[in-house]
Amino acid sequence: QIDSARLWGSIHETAQFGATAKGGVRRLTLSSEDKQVRDWFRRACEDAGLEVHTDALGSQFGLRKGRDMSKPPVGIGSHLDTQPTGGKYDGILGTLGALEVIRTLNDAGIETETPICIVNWTNEEGSRFAPAMMASAAYVGDFTTDDILSRKDAEGTTVGQALDSIGYRGDKPVGFQKLGCFVELHIEQGPILEAEGKTIGVVDSGQGVLWYDGKISGFESHAGSTPMPLRRDALATLSEIVLAMESIAKKLGPNAVGTIGEAVIANPSRNVIPGEIAFTMDCRSADGAIMDALDRDLRAAIAEIAARRRVEVKIDLVWRKPPTHFDPKLIAAVENAAKTLGYSSRRITSGAGHDACNLNTVMPAAMVFVPCKDGISHNELEDATQPDCAAGTNVLMHTVLAIAGV
Amino acid sequence: QIDSARLWGSIHETAQFGATAKGGVRRLTLSSEDKQVRDWFRRACEDAGLEVHTDALGSQFGLRKGRDMSKPPVGIGSHLDTQPTGGKYDGILGTLGALEVIRTLNDAGIETETPICIVNWTNEEGSRFAPAMMASAAYVGDFTTDDILSRKDAEGTTVGQALDSIGYRGDKPVGFQKLGCFVELHIEQGPILEAEGKTIGVVDSGQGVLWYDGKISGFESHAGSTPMPLRRDALATLSEIVLAMESIAKKLGPNAVGTIGEAVIANPSRNVIPGEIAFTMDCRSADGAIMDALDRDLRAAIAEIAARRRVEVKIDLVWRKPPTHFDPKLIAAVENAAKTLGYSSRRITSGAGHDACNLNTVMPAAMVFVPCKDGISHNELEDATQPDCAAGTNVLMHTVLAIAGV
Ligand SMILES: NC(=O)NCCC(=O)O
Ligand SMILES: NC(=O)NCCC(=O)O
Repeated sequence: QIDSARLWGSIHETAQFGATAKGGVRRLTLSSEDKQVRDWFRRACEDAGLEVHTDALGSQFGLRKGRDMSKPPVGIGSHLDTQPTGGKYDGILGTLGALEVIRTLNDAGIETETPICIVNWTNEEGSRFAPAMMASAAYVGDFTTDDILSRKDAEGTTVGQALDSIGYRGDKPVGFQKLGCFVELHIEQGPILEAEGKTIGVVDSGQGVLWYDGKISGFESHAGSTPMPLRRDALATLSEIVLAMESIAKKLGPNAVGTIGEAVIANPSRNVIPGEIAFTMDCRSADGAIMDALDRDLRAAIAEIAARRRVEVKIDLVWRKPPTHFDPKLIAAVENAAKTLGYSSRRITSGAGHDACNLNTVMPAAMVFVPCKDGISHNELEDATQPDCAAGTNVLMHTVLAIAGV
Repeated sequence: QIDSARLWGSIHETAQFGATAKGGVRRLTLSSEDKQVRDWFRRACEDAGLEVHTDALGSQFGLRKGRDMSKPPVGIGSHLDTQPTGGKYDGILGTLGALEVIRTLNDAGIETETPICIVNWTNEEGSRFAPAMMASAAYVGDFTTDDILSRKDAEGTTVGQALDSIGYRGDKPVGFQKLGCFVELHIEQGPILEAEGKTIGVVDSGQGVLWYDGKISGFESHAGSTPMPLRRDALATLSEIVLAMESIAKKLGPNAVGTIGEAVIANPSRNVIPGEIAFTMDCRSADGAIMDALDRDLRAAIAEIAARRRVEVKIDLVWRKPPTHFDPKLIAAVENAAKTLGYSSRRITSGAGHDACNLNTVMPAAMVFVPCKDGISHNELEDATQPDCAAGTNVLMHTVLAIAGV
């Protein structure tokens, strides 16, 4: 059994790095707050006797030796960055839970056959730089390191510049640390486990993701003197797109979602009809055919709206992540650990993307979910209970022990 | 006849203060660009022999003596501030046209019975500080000077601070310069004169304006894991409000418009459902009953949308300006001047608000319109011809001479 109080202490100690007035965390990837939590994590790994390295994209790896060092380690971990108005658990539970597993094994003097490596992946959230799960995507070869290093945030700062500014451009090439498999603990970020009174979610699949950048070019004109029929209003156009996306996602059933999270009017003024808007779109489904339908229906709706309103709408697909199907043997290992420990559990699909989804494309991977209050995440009010966090960490540890061998 | 080339030269010389790449002007009120054009205007007034004063809200007054100094002067002028992406004529034609009238009278050695005062009113546009036509509203007593001085822009800078920062908080109290009447020359900012091939618009009325500040409070949550039916999406709410306003304005007929010009998502992120949006609304009609209907229908639609989407929407009416009916005698004077000079003309309603609309509440006022290209205004592409600008300025001068007496 892991030390529930110690785990809880780590979560709340690190929550000071970027703490917000409403009890959440604002710790955008590669920000000064992110540097603070990275420094804390590195020291904690060193104190736990791990060999710590940082790769060229800033991901941190802490290695615990096994008896057979020829075997690639069992990877566990998650991320320590957050949304602009994020919570204390998203990513953090999985990273500090992995640290807690190491500390518990150390205290109990348990040696494993296979080494264990705990990881803090850079920019999982995708809020400052696109795409989300950036570093693990580069790790599995979806993007080159140079491509990722040149990605820019809204201020035009590149990933490379941001890494240098906090001193976290590591000396190890991306992929230097081979892993044999990867298990990630996370809060559910949805309402199902709580509603059904289950403690453990055995994640068997994850939604695919489509991310788009959009730009609407209408025509700025005077709010008072431009008759309604003559307008080419960028905001009215966006409004129709937002509602079309909503109805397309609803029509495609419970297994589809669509969101416009960002929209910025250029040079806004009260008495000027908006002429130009930049926006982003996020569409998801666990079903590849539904993803295709989302893309097709959305493009058709946008084309119709743009033509009718005599405006130009440009849509760029900037990221496409197919649905994930986790490794059956690892899924069974998680399920078995939950059962052995006496926790109630159910199979579940992840609504969010996770680094484990990327790793699953090149190695066996799986995930452990615990409930979060009202299913709320990406919100400062995100909450989870200490017993649930401890239960998930115990399941993580027993899964690792089953794979790594004692 | 005024000097068309000199007028055109003044317009294009001052267009350098805040010139944009697309040929427009960005000269927000009380900005450093506004200081530049004010300095230019003050020197030009002094060179024309006027006695120049600035009031406590930065409005500039240039007085040309008349034979009977016991009579309150005939006021002419407009404003030199622009929208963030504004043009070279909106307000500028009326202010520099007034200067051109003075220069022409000087050159011709014409003395008038009544003095003439040319005015550059502060913050006509209302883009940086609300409401629009701020200084002329204070002049007529709609707001106290202290109230206006404390108004803030989006950065939290007050009007008072902005005046001090460019050295234009004048030593004269607002209202120090009595005026007997006011005539304002302006581009139409709409498509009617051009479409009908008329040179002069004799403005007999102006639309009323309703300005609102709005705030939507929904709930931030995860774009991937929050099912569509559970969302309380602030942007989807805004979208319905935008489209409801559009259809209400259309339904209330050709004599009503409604615009949402500003909308800002708080802490936006691609994968976060927007939780909070601040926005503004601008509704207008020349008919008071239609203004009431706009207000009533909009509030009802917003209440229905908010309740159905389980979000909170707050609406504050920050400005209400009733429709304007200009002075019949001055309207006739403008019409007569156009006829005498041989210009085609028609009566017209102003879609935009103007300082003359404020002044009309306490003294006789009227306006002269000239066509602008495709009716485009509040846009860097705003355009007008040199002959039309000269024609409008001639009509202004002859109207003034008729009122002031030679
Ligand atoms: N777990 C999580 O919230 N990941 C962020 C990436 C995404 O799913 O949008
Ligand atoms: N003339 C003009 O564009 N005024 C700005 C105020 C408004 O009508 O919104």
